[in-house]
Amino acid sequence: MAEITKEEITKWFQGLQDSICNSLEKLDGKSTFKEDQWDRPEGGGGRSRVIKGGDLIEKGGVNFSAVSGPTPEKILNALNLPEANFFATGVSIVLHPQNPWVPIIHMNVRYFEMSNGIWWFGGGIDLTPHYVIKEKAQNFHQYLKDTCDKHDSEFYPRFKEWADDYFFVKHRNETRGIGGIFFDRLTVKDGKSKADHWQFVKDVGETFIPAYTDAIEGLRDKNWSDADKNWQKIRRGRYVEFNLVHDKGTKFGLDTNGRTESILMSMPPEANWEYDYQPKSNLELETQEQLKKGINWIA
Amino acid sequence: MAEITKEEITKWFQGLQDSICNSLEKLDGKSTFKEDQWDRPEGGGGRSRVIKGGDLIEKGGVNFSAVSGPTPEKILNALNLPEANFFATGVSIVLHPQNPWVPIIHMNVRYFEMSNGIWWFGGGIDLTPHYVIKEKAQNFHQYLKDTCDKHDSEFYPRFKEWADDYFFVKHRNETRGIGGIFFDRLTVKDGKSKADHWQFVKDVGETFIPAYTDAIEGLRDKNWSDADKNWQKIRRGRYVEFNLVHDKGTKFGLDTNGRTESILMSMPPEANWEYDYQPKSNLELETQEQLKKGINWIA
Repeated sequence: MAEITKEEITKWFQGLQDSICNSLEKLDGKSTFKEDQWDRPEGGGGRSRVIKGGDLIEKGGVNFSAVSGPTPEKILNALNLPEANFFATGVSIVLHPQNPWVPIIHMNVRYFEMSNGIWWFGGGIDLTPHYVIKEKAQNFHQYLKDTCDKHDSEFYPRFKEWADDYFFVKHRNETRGIGGIFFDRLTVKDGKSKADHWQFVKDVGETFIPAYTDAIEGLRDKNWSDADKNWQKIRRGRYVEFNLVHDKGTKFGLDTNGRTESILMSMPPEANWEYDYQPKSNLELETQEQLKKGINWIA
Repeated sequence: MAEITKEEITKWFQGLQDSICNSLEKLDGKSTFKEDQWDRPEGGGGRSRVIKGGDLIEKGGVNFSAVSGPTPEKILNALNLPEANFFATGVSIVLHPQNPWVPIIHMNVRYFEMSNGIWWFGGGIDLTPHYVIKEKAQNFHQYLKDTCDKHDSEFYPRFKEWADDYFFVKHRNETRGIGGIFFDRLTVKDGKSKADHWQFVKDVGETFIPAYTDAIEGLRDKNWSDADKNWQKIRRGRYVEFNLVHDKGTKFGLDTNGRTESILMSMPPEANWEYDYQPKSNLELETQEQLKKGINWIA
């Protein structure tokens, strides 16, 4: 069987961006995506697509990029490798909903290769509910587990733990949300071929819409109060803190002179900070108490 | 003359916090500061004072701390020194105003010493107007220059340039605001004694209230529109980006397990992000165009 090529991966990711934007426009029912195509001076470029003021989505982005050029020093140093060119392509999504009952969702799927033959896949999906609803959290993790289990029964427990560790706001000692799955540097090992990994990454990408559709179902039309909106903005503040202080992808993008507007499409439309905020309702408190690692959401 | 002691410095900084809070409560005229005293498990502690919902100040903090213990690895490694204990004390201020015409202001004055005899002073004041007003910018820099000039005619140009470089939002290619002064690791050199440096730092601390009083004069009662408020929130988003991505003090505090609520008192009450925001008025555009290094505000 022919080796999976970067052209094939790139094309599929572009198609994934198209189909997800299409589905999200249908789900939203009011707003549509606006596209910016951009070039990277060092090589490659991308298509950033943003949506705002929707019925469902207050602000969101679905970005595709395929960039190339000399491998950033940071990566070469970390791997202890001499100069090489790289190619990286992926799709990144962050959606901030209007309604505080609807969760924030994030997905990223990506492929990286170097001219020295090294390659890997990475990605993840995680959910950040402003209010944690047990049944919804369970469904979300079940979608991810089902996708993982089709490939390897070790994947879900391993990638779920990885997400708990990755999406952790250390200075708050809390997780960003209820986690999901996170994986990086998947390459040929454990008896898995490049084709196996690629099929897994494609399946993760295709899990986004069904998982999100379930996550918003019954919540998007729920009434909300000013207090709910304020809590949403406080939680969005924490989202900002994670992304700007801890997220390795954001840091790497900004450090390597990436396209700032595309990287920071993950920022919420409005965020609030109150000094020493204390939960003001049982629901806020219950959510706060569930922002920790190691919860088995499916059990 | 007896050497300046850490006890003397600590006491003076506490007094500075008191007098600044006092003056700010008078300036605000509506809200008062709420104090939290806290202890640091490894040694020392602080008094965080926050004000919110004022007539002038929407959210602000004036923090004093005096902490001690084993010197963080990061500092020892940077200086290539063996283990030593440290002591650090300082006052930090960030004030976010209600009115978009009023600037955000920040000040920090600090003293650091180690059991190996090494010590230094640091600090700075900088102004972040949502709308840059030439005359106000000139006055602000004049206050700082006058304070500097009392000590050394080299200080203002040197520390003004240092502020331009420090308060720079690299990923936006813009300065945080109109800058001010920034200095660090002032120690015995250039013929200056510890007493000289200490007098300079005290003078900087005492420049805060007069400089701020001028900066808000005639602006706090100016009418503002929804568009002005939105621009203010966009600019606050950039303030968040600087503080969480670039500010070394914030990073150091969060990395070394500092008190998160005290460190992040600098966050604005409300901040907005819009994808690829473009200035919507001449005033916004003129402000944007003045967010660059090397402007001689006094000339």
